[in-house]
Amino acid sequence: MEKQYVVGIDMGGTNTTFAIVDARGSIYQRGAIKTGDYETAEAYTDALCNGVNDLVKDAGLQGSIKGIGMGAPNGNYYRGTIELAANIPWANKSVVPIAQMITDKTGLPCQLTNDANAAAVGEMTYGAAKGMKDFIVITLGTGVGSGVFCNGQLVCGHDGFAGELGHVNVRRFNGRACGCGATGCLEAYSSATGLVRTAKEMLELRSEDSILRSICDRALTSKDVFDAAEKKDFIAQEIFKYTGNILGEAFANFIAFSSPEAIILFGGLARAGSHLLEPMQKSMDENVLSIFKGKTKLLVSNLNDSEAAILGASALAWEDKSGK
Amino acid sequence: MEKQYVVGIDMGGTNTTFAIVDARGSIYQRGAIKTGDYETAEAYTDALCNGVNDLVKDAGLQGSIKGIGMGAPNGNYYRGTIELAANIPWANKSVVPIAQMITDKTGLPCQLTNDANAAAVGEMTYGAAKGMKDFIVITLGTGVGSGVFCNGQLVCGHDGFAGELGHVNVRRFNGRACGCGATGCLEAYSSATGLVRTAKEMLELRSEDSILRSICDRALTSKDVFDAAEKKDFIAQEIFKYTGNILGEAFANFIAFSSPEAIILFGGLARAGSHLLEPMQKSMDENVLSIFKGKTKLLVSNLNDSEAAILGASALAWEDKSGK
Repeated sequence: MEKQYVVGIDMGGTNTTFAIVDARGSIYQRGAIKTGDYETAEAYTDALCNGVNDLVKDAGLQGSIKGIGMGAPNGNYYRGTIELAANIPWANKSVVPIAQMITDKTGLPCQLTNDANAAAVGEMTYGAAKGMKDFIVITLGTGVGSGVFCNGQLVCGHDGFAGELGHVNVRRFNGRACGCGATGCLEAYSSATGLVRTAKEMLELRSEDSILRSICDRALTSKDVFDAAEKKDFIAQEIFKYTGNILGEAFANFIAFSSPEAIILFGGLARAGSHLLEPMQKSMDENVLSIFKGKTKLLVSNLNDSEAAILGASALAWEDKSGK
Repeated sequence: MEKQYVVGIDMGGTNTTFAIVDARGSIYQRGAIKTGDYETAEAYTDALCNGVNDLVKDAGLQGSIKGIGMGAPNGNYYRGTIELAANIPWANKSVVPIAQMITDKTGLPCQLTNDANAAAVGEMTYGAAKGMKDFIVITLGTGVGSGVFCNGQLVCGHDGFAGELGHVNVRRFNGRACGCGATGCLEAYSSATGLVRTAKEMLELRSEDSILRSICDRALTSKDVFDAAEKKDFIAQEIFKYTGNILGEAFANFIAFSSPEAIILFGGLARAGSHLLEPMQKSMDENVLSIFKGKTKLLVSNLNDSEAAILGASALAWEDKSGK
């Protein structure tokens, strides 16, 4: 049989990147457009599909593409729609049938989900979750996203939007305000942004000396905290401890729900290494129900950061939809 | 084709009941033994299987039984074992291959899971979850159990023990001690026992008059609180509000995880009607992420309480195991 390929599309608020990928997860050809350059879904999908069609043509792979997989903000797996996506002007108040539009313009089937679900599919197809049927991917970036697999299937829920673990409540009283409008969400503590909030709080409340005190309050980033922790800065290490502790507590609850073989961390903060992982593991072990103790592995994604989002999206195109 | 039947076994700490059930969920013949009368797994399964074999013989249904389904404390779906079940003397420190023992003694395939998972399978096969692929059953009894379905499959996790939602943490600080050894578990607040603890706390802390004050502290039951609430006793109503509020908060987190079509309540407290349901619904609506608002139904099981456990267990025998 002729070798088959898929196309992965990673749609972010700023850039949309796309690439041709083979079954082993190797990227052949890439392209990109600026998401924000287009004022309508029609114009955006025109530009995107021209890019994809050209890529396939240039590679001489017409007829060898099995399909397109796409990760997009508020992407709905069942309906192939982008729904009420806050950062996409042409989709922030409506339901856009993006998968169908892409199929119309490329002649290829298109599967859609949100970026964290795409990351989970990618981990199963090419990454740390290969061979696993039950696992959770947690993306620790500007926000906190998640993709859940149970029984070898992506958990999308009855409406296609399951797996919003960044918005479980982790602090019921006096919780931090979250972008979603609620207070006390996991994301408000353990995203890169949440880490910086913790840093600012801790620098305010505690008196120990710290490298971080020399950085202007407004400019402080999670990278600064990491760099300081690497230099054994006490406050920086405490910031990671606090963040890891809350993540570990939350993971113990997730384990009680779906008892995954592994929880796989992905995204910027996941690269903080033992500064974050050690307190996280400790807190998870302390909080997990005894029947689950020591069973769930805590792993960091081994996919290349610049490729993982496209790989994850592309992996969708290899998947069949569940019976829905 | 000849009509087929299954056998359901509901193993509790005190009684084990069993029955022949048809595909529509009608119970034909019943039997029971005292779980506590037997000192070994061998003696227990001997008595149980004699009872089952006699029942099938008396009904003249030899050859028409597709299999046996059993709900048991700490029953493991994948392995067919009872593992470290605190209340079963012959299984509290060991792993007992109960399904295999029953198969050996009856000649019938036997599927096993815990009682809350069995309840969930029962709801899908005969009850409120008929036709649903994504739902959660919460059992509100002496403890709080749960059974989760995603994509039409029971979520058992990588080890067969998933769905312990009674032990998610709902109060991180100053939480109540739970039987599992942790503090702040959902079960410590929203089981029948948890409701009585709330009652005692509230009677202590608040000054309003209440029917409940005339009941000796030790003898107070959840039924007393219900009866008082029915008589519009203010404190009793506040007790249900407090309990329903915590359940609704927890449900909002569960929805963020698996976005179920419905959460179905089962067990003693589920019969408290609007006293519990109204505050629960209100709290769930207030806490759920906006993308899920108004989508997940809150239902009460319509299965007959005395039959539901056996029906749930029996339903397992109609199910195929997932690929594991």
